[in-house]
Amino acid sequence: MDERTHTPPEVPDATIDHDRELRTGQAEAVYGPGKTPAQVRDIALAIIASSGGAVFVTRATPDQFHALVERVPTATYAPRSRLIIAQRAEPPHALGTVAVVSAGTSDLPVADEAAETGAALGIEVIRVTDVGVAGIHRVMAQRDRIEGADVAIVVAGMDGALPTVVAGLTSTPVIAVPTSVGYGASFDGLAALLTMLNGCAPGVTVVNIDNGFGAAQAAFRMLTIAVRRTRSPSESLAGDVAP
Amino acid sequence: MDERTHTPPEVPDATIDHDRELRTGQAEAVYGPGKTPAQVRDIALAIIASSGGAVFVTRATPDQFHALVERVPTATYAPRSRLIIAQRAEPPHALGTVAVVSAGTSDLPVADEAAETGAALGIEVIRVTDVGVAGIHRVMAQRDRIEGADVAIVVAGMDGALPTVVAGLTSTPVIAVPTSVGYGASFDGLAALLTMLNGCAPGVTVVNIDNGFGAAQAAFRMLTIAVRRTRSPSESLAGDVAP
Amino acid sequence: MDERTHTPPEVPDATIDHDRELRTGQAEAVYGPGKTPAQVRDIALAIIASSGGAVFVTRATPDQFHALVERVPTATYAPRSRLIIAQRAEPPHALGTVAVVSAGTSDLPVADEAAETGAALGIEVIRVTDVGVAGIHRVMAQRDRIEGADVAIVVAGMDGALPTVVAGLTSTPVIAVPTSVGYGASFDGLAALLTMLNGCAPGVTVVNIDNGFGAAQAAFRMLTIAVRRTRSPSESLAGDVAP
Amino acid sequence: MDERTHTPPEVPDATIDHDRELRTGQAEAVYGPGKTPAQVRDIALAIIASSGGAVFVTRATPDQFHALVERVPTATYAPRSRLIIAQRAEPPHALGTVAVVSAGTSDLPVADEAAETGAALGIEVIRVTDVGVAGIHRVMAQRDRIEGADVAIVVAGMDGALPTVVAGLTSTPVIAVPTSVGYGASFDGLAALLTMLNGCAPGVTVVNIDNGFGAAQAAFRMLTIAVRRTRSPSESLAGDVAP
Amino acid sequence: MDERTHTPPEVPDATIDHDRELRTGQAEAVYGPGKTPAQVRDIALAIIASSGGAVFVTRATPDQFHALVERVPTATYAPRSRLIIAQRAEPPHALGTVAVVSAGTSDLPVADEAAETGAALGIEVIRVTDVGVAGIHRVMAQRDRIEGADVAIVVAGMDGALPTVVAGLTSTPVIAVPTSVGYGASFDGLAALLTMLNGCAPGVTVVNIDNGFGAAQAAFRMLTIAVRRTRSPSESLAGDVAP
Amino acid sequence: MDERTHTPPEVPDATIDHDRELRTGQAEAVYGPGKTPAQVRDIALAIIASSGGAVFVTRATPDQFHALVERVPTATYAPRSRLIIAQRAEPPHALGTVAVVSAGTSDLPVADEAAETGAALGIEVIRVTDVGVAGIHRVMAQRDRIEGADVAIVVAGMDGALPTVVAGLTSTPVIAVPTSVGYGASFDGLAALLTMLNGCAPGVTVVNIDNGFGAAQAAFRMLTIAVRRTRSPSESLAGDVAP
Amino acid sequence: MDERTHTPPEVPDATIDHDRELRTGQAEAVYGPGKTPAQVRDIALAIIASSGGAVFVTRATPDQFHALVERVPTATYAPRSRLIIAQRAEPPHALGTVAVVSAGTSDLPVADEAAETGAALGIEVIRVTDVGVAGIHRVMAQRDRIEGADVAIVVAGMDGALPTVVAGLTSTPVIAVPTSVGYGASFDGLAALLTMLNGCAPGVTVVNIDNGFGAAQAAFRMLTIAVRRTRSPSESLAGDVAP
Amino acid sequence: MDERTHTPPEVPDATIDHDRELRTGQAEAVYGPGKTPAQVRDIALAIIASSGGAVFVTRATPDQFHALVERVPTATYAPRSRLIIAQRAEPPHALGTVAVVSAGTSDLPVADEAAETGAALGIEVIRVTDVGVAGIHRVMAQRDRIEGADVAIVVAGMDGALPTVVAGLTSTPVIAVPTSVGYGASFDGLAALLTMLNGCAPGVTVVNIDNGFGAAQAAFRMLTIAVRRTRSPSESLAGDVAP
Repeated sequence: MDERTHTPPEVPDATIDHDRELRTGQAEAVYGPGKTPAQVRDIALAIIASSGGAVFVTRATPDQFHALVERVPTATYAPRSRLIIAQRAEPPHALGTVAVVSAGTSDLPVADEAAETGAALGIEVIRVTDVGVAGIHRVMAQRDRIEGADVAIVVAGMDGALPTVVAGLTSTPVIAVPTSVGYGASFDGLAALLTMLNGCAPGVTVVNIDNGFGAAQAAFRMLTIAVRRTRSPSESLAGDVAP
Repeated sequence: MDERTHTPPEVPDATIDHDRELRTGQAEAVYGPGKTPAQVRDIALAIIASSGGAVFVTRATPDQFHALVERVPTATYAPRSRLIIAQRAEPPHALGTVAVVSAGTSDLPVADEAAETGAALGIEVIRVTDVGVAGIHRVMAQRDRIEGADVAIVVAGMDGALPTVVAGLTSTPVIAVPTSVGYGASFDGLAALLTMLNGCAPGVTVVNIDNGFGAAQAAFRMLTIAVRRTRSPSESLAGDVAP
Repeated sequence: MDERTHTPPEVPDATIDHDRELRTGQAEAVYGPGKTPAQVRDIALAIIASSGGAVFVTRATPDQFHALVERVPTATYAPRSRLIIAQRAEPPHALGTVAVVSAGTSDLPVADEAAETGAALGIEVIRVTDVGVAGIHRVMAQRDRIEGADVAIVVAGMDGALPTVVAGLTSTPVIAVPTSVGYGASFDGLAALLTMLNGCAPGVTVVNIDNGFGAAQAAFRMLTIAVRRTRSPSESLAGDVAP
Repeated sequence: MDERTHTPPEVPDATIDHDRELRTGQAEAVYGPGKTPAQVRDIALAIIASSGGAVFVTRATPDQFHALVERVPTATYAPRSRLIIAQRAEPPHALGTVAVVSAGTSDLPVADEAAETGAALGIEVIRVTDVGVAGIHRVMAQRDRIEGADVAIVVAGMDGALPTVVAGLTSTPVIAVPTSVGYGASFDGLAALLTMLNGCAPGVTVVNIDNGFGAAQAAFRMLTIAVRRTRSPSESLAGDVAP
Repeated sequence: MDERTHTPPEVPDATIDHDRELRTGQAEAVYGPGKTPAQVRDIALAIIASSGGAVFVTRATPDQFHALVERVPTATYAPRSRLIIAQRAEPPHALGTVAVVSAGTSDLPVADEAAETGAALGIEVIRVTDVGVAGIHRVMAQRDRIEGADVAIVVAGMDGALPTVVAGLTSTPVIAVPTSVGYGASFDGLAALLTMLNGCAPGVTVVNIDNGFGAAQAAFRMLTIAVRRTRSPSESLAGDVAP
Repeated sequence: MDERTHTPPEVPDATIDHDRELRTGQAEAVYGPGKTPAQVRDIALAIIASSGGAVFVTRATPDQFHALVERVPTATYAPRSRLIIAQRAEPPHALGTVAVVSAGTSDLPVADEAAETGAALGIEVIRVTDVGVAGIHRVMAQRDRIEGADVAIVVAGMDGALPTVVAGLTSTPVIAVPTSVGYGASFDGLAALLTMLNGCAPGVTVVNIDNGFGAAQAAFRMLTIAVRRTRSPSESLAGDVAP
Repeated sequence: MDERTHTPPEVPDATIDHDRELRTGQAEAVYGPGKTPAQVRDIALAIIASSGGAVFVTRATPDQFHALVERVPTATYAPRSRLIIAQRAEPPHALGTVAVVSAGTSDLPVADEAAETGAALGIEVIRVTDVGVAGIHRVMAQRDRIEGADVAIVVAGMDGALPTVVAGLTSTPVIAVPTSVGYGASFDGLAALLTMLNGCAPGVTVVNIDNGFGAAQAAFRMLTIAVRRTRSPSESLAGDVAP
Repeated sequence: MDERTHTPPEVPDATIDHDRELRTGQAEAVYGPGKTPAQVRDIALAIIASSGGAVFVTRATPDQFHALVERVPTATYAPRSRLIIAQRAEPPHALGTVAVVSAGTSDLPVADEAAETGAALGIEVIRVTDVGVAGIHRVMAQRDRIEGADVAIVVAGMDGALPTVVAGLTSTPVIAVPTSVGYGASFDGLAALLTMLNGCAPGVTVVNIDNGFGAAQAAFRMLTIAVRRTRSPSESLAGDVAP
């Protein structure tokens, strides 16, 4: 990719964290809201310039994408998840498998964000869709598919009850993602968030409301446990998990 | 019961709603907190005097019970549910069956309150205990028992997810009772309450946190639908459903 | 209806709960927000294909309705309640009567949703409109009409005080529906919701803010108590209550 | 009263607002919590020294009262309302009548605080007790007594619905006092507070949770409207309304 | 006014409280939001038909006004306060004076609503504008004007501190109106509301956020104390205070 | 351990989830609050009887421990964390290493709960204590120790900022545990919880306030990713990870 | 500037606090929302007429600016911060240096408001941008620049953790500004606000969400400590710190 | 003091931030709650050993003090503020003057904490007590004393209105401290906190509820602005401001 250079460019309005990938295995992500298209473009270009792996802009607008894709023609944008993937990892080895399980069709934009992020990070993604607990047999019928994955990301709005059920059925780590789907006493996802934090099946962890991106990043870290064991703490992760 | 008189006594600090039973089928209940033992005793005696059915004091202290039992020796007190039953209906006919389903052992005081209230109102009560959604097969194994009841009262703290699952498995009306069991982000039952209000299985209704008594009263009303059909709206209910 | 088939179709982005009606007496409902018109259409068609009873899309947009009505010409849409009824039960027998009582004219969209849902489920619906507690004689004048119904659905915003009053006047089960009508400290219906949960007349149960649909579904379950008594728990409900 | 002097004493830890009574018609009140008995005693003595009217300590402990009564033998203490009245107005003329209306027996401590404060300020107080909206006929039976008063103070916990009903039945100013009576979703009086703020009958005003004292003070101000009309704005109120 | 008839018309979607004026001295008000222009028109016409006094539509849209003014040419609409006054009292005698005191220029729409309502009810209104506590001398300079009024309505957003200061300076009843003016931690007026409920100067009462209309109605009730004293409780108020 | 039997005993008040360990790799845990010592003892014994691994009672009282240790002499109790470990795994192989990082000395009870749970599950635990962000060099000095672990559990109250910093310094999965340490606007841990959910370093997941136990269980699941890969989804986990 | 006159003009809808600058060293600011362009113009002109220093309109719209700039051609408007500076101080002496430190690029509008306000008040402003705690070395690399300033204004949304870290690294007073940047559980800046109030590094003070203007005003006051020492308390500040 | 050594001791359960004083001018403080007396003693001793200035334990219990004073006989404890001062600065030069202004007598424990902390840091403290806004002339009478100070710390509970008034009267930096004094809708200080954050007088900054200690630390930083100007950023502050 010809935007990539060896001298990190200076970007107005930003201080690029060029070493983030070395420290954490993943380059800095760009949060779209509140930034102009030009800011998004310049910041993303600077991150790409010093990164070997996937680069993301979350909650992006079409205008932000258009500004970037002129400079990075391979960038992609998914309107439903509003996720720009500005550079995709060419994974040297598969990190593992994540099941993205969602409770309702209206939760799909958040589940998509998780799935697209995971795929761009070199993770095999399995989708299990529309298996909310009001029809409990639906998730039970998928139990073995979920158990077969290394990690489960479980996305649910409204009552947010699905992650507890999944964690009670399987031995996988469960990352719960509350969504803002609902009305009235859902309070924009607060109800689902509280449900998930209070789930009775130990082993569930929770991310912010609608944060499919963060859930996939957390899954990525879990999948690199094996990779990280083969090196000393002060070594860079980047060489191992990114192309 | 010799406390019963035909001239309603005047009670200091209270205005007894002597016609409540005629209008609604159930005598006024006494809310214990904030009342002295003497107030509880006098109010309960006045209600008993004009009531033909069950009389309850909720969230009562042992002292309140002792003040009352001196005058009403048949009164009973259950320490776990803190419920005084000062007069029990001798039901002329069984109203129906209610399944009291609870998610965890710590929810039992609230489930007890519902079950004891229901029984005193002439309802057959089935108990289904400790079937939280973290082990989903437990409630599924009880599905036919719950479906066989006329109404299900489902009691749960923490994530409060059980009522949605029960409503998705059965065709019974489901009365959800959130409990204050939990810690941290359960916010004294708020999390369970919100979960239940946002449940995705239509047909669930909700009562206040820890309100097992109100759930049983609501079930009682549902079970009297058939009874009420046999009379005109301006007739008293009391003659039909209470001894 | 020719959309109905015996082999449930696969629907992208959805896992239809084809057995919901068998288990619970009512087919799965479709929650409109967050779904494209095509998703709504495909999911509704799949549900219709395996359902014998009423099929609903709640909080639907006109676009969602237009996508569906091309395939299901008998579908109806009520703009005020935003409810699509995609298939109406032809009730073999009347289930009973529900009074839909509303406090103010601004609460009518929610009351409509309850009334239209109930009617489509084979329930006779009585409307009692604009009887808020600031003019208490209005609801007292309607007391006998409400008492004559099997169930009362009471819809109120702002102070949400009406359900307690109705429950104190009648012996019917009362399903309280808080609405988001109000401003300032109504906090989008939170005030009315809390009022209803704290009502002093036992026997009131509550559904989510603005959830007229769920209230009618709950009433439907209450009215099937008698129907369900005539069969064993493992039998399907659908044969009894739906055409 | 021999504690009264003409040179206001200095009080450690306090800056007595000696002119409050001149400006507002009522001497400064002492808020008991967080003060030592000695502080309460010294502050109350200083206020008495420069005041001609009633002096109050609210939410006082028995210890605070004992410290004060040694110096002011005529002081009184009501354990239920925790109100010390350290000096009572000898009203030169009756200001008017206030109806203190309470919803339940558990609300009586707050209603007492209002009634005792009012009486000490030279107001005739009528009590209407235990007339909550679950038995709506109780308050309707008292309608003429309430309408006959100049102001109604309406005290209610739990659902807090009573003030709206009273305001809809009468033409009196209604001062609503939410109480912390309740449990679960009453959130220590928040539910009743919100109900009262959202009441649909115009003319209701609201004070803090459990603030019977403030309600009576507000009623006092309303009753002095006529008195104040007879003097110029810069004159002292004290000469007119206090002995 | 020729819309006035002696047989109250039936209005679809509404149950007019034709006796409200007899009971409370003021006709029912119409809450604009959530109603169609036709509903507003029909309800207002029905109220006018049976009312002798002022008739209001609050939070009205221009469209609602246009629908009504075609039938009631004397109706007026103030865009800043969004208040329709559909019939104005021709006050037989002045009820008294209310000072409408506002903290900032941005609070004026709410202050206007209070002032316009009061004027239509036959109250003399004094305006005191932009005297927030950050420049405390501004309100002190107006102290005598406020003290000269019978009632003070004090309108403030942001910190909501003004009513406490006014109540500490004067002997008038103070009706505090929090406004939603502010940002961030004002939480749409919650901060000002809480401030006012916790004010340290006894005698302040509070209405809902932005509820200038309710404040004026409460002031109206306070001003009728003297009027009401001259009649028995069961008499109508309307003959005395409305034309 | 001689309490272990092959026929699961029936326990009053409980429905033991005997298969939990087979499905999820970990036996059901007992939540102490709201249970009598006898209930805790009986439930724990029943779980032990069918479990091959560690058995926990969380938030236990000394009385609950004393009831249990009479029957299970090897049980241990840590007063600071209130954790009973009723049976300890004899780990056939080390699962991996978890760094338990805590922000302040007052957070230690929660950190202890995580560390003790982890150790009992066969995890090597590293402690990093009192490294809050107010002295940022403290956590930076420990960076390599944390990076050397497979998973980091980061425990913090008050501002809850530590997990974001740790996640930005390392590539380990970070499980954030908010604690209720703090006062005022910490709102019993809500502030720390919100901080952690909003952390800007992707890869952080969060558990309930004070839930050190759940954090360790989540870490356990992450560490079994490698183990689970060697078997088919329908096999039991228990044989692999527990003795 | 020719708008400046010696007789303060009367402004409709406003009570200009002409002495504010004498008392506090800074003229009254105009809060834009809820005011018409004409109101903003007239109020600003009146303040300018009696002020010798900077005059600000915060959260202004372009229309408000256009109305003002016609009369005050030197006025400036920054769209990103929405700040009108209607008159700029010509500082007789530099007051000192403030470092405006921001966590993310999306926080820049708030940081700009602080920086522009400070500059207009005669403060030298240093910008430190995009140094959020997820890449902790970024702020550490700027430690000496921040320490070299007299005051640090630290602007952060989402987790709001940056002020604590800065206060732990430096000896400057730290004014923390939470921003509404974020989504889900950021609750429009509440999460950042709570974090900052609970920060563990003493010496941090906090202003309202998004209140960059207030932060700069607070810094201005801190920088005038030295100036104020040279005069008596009753002297005007204005002569010293404004031109 | 013989506890002081040159080799910082290791302390179990703590990681002493020995350089905090060098970086920030003030040694680490010890937060008492949740720590055993032995932990408090050991941590305080370790901090004393490497510090040249004041050392504090906040919210300490008498037991914690007794453990410490055995080893540090000069330590002092103030029961009202619960503050241990384990080592007092012998200030080489007076830093300046802080006015600690409190609204009510019940706010004194928090005001004391601020005053005692300030005095121990070498600040001259002026106390202005019981000048709440309900008697506005009280604070105006003290205006010149407050203006004469370099910084004002303003402590208030209930409505929290005092800081805005002080900031509008003076040119000093105002540090607002909300207290938990109040009841009902004060929500343990939340009302006062929100009031202070929304204050209309620019220049007010806020600390956590009841955080008098933090307010004094912030004032200390403001007073060192002049001191810090005389050295380069990388120099230690400690040599200048501590003995």
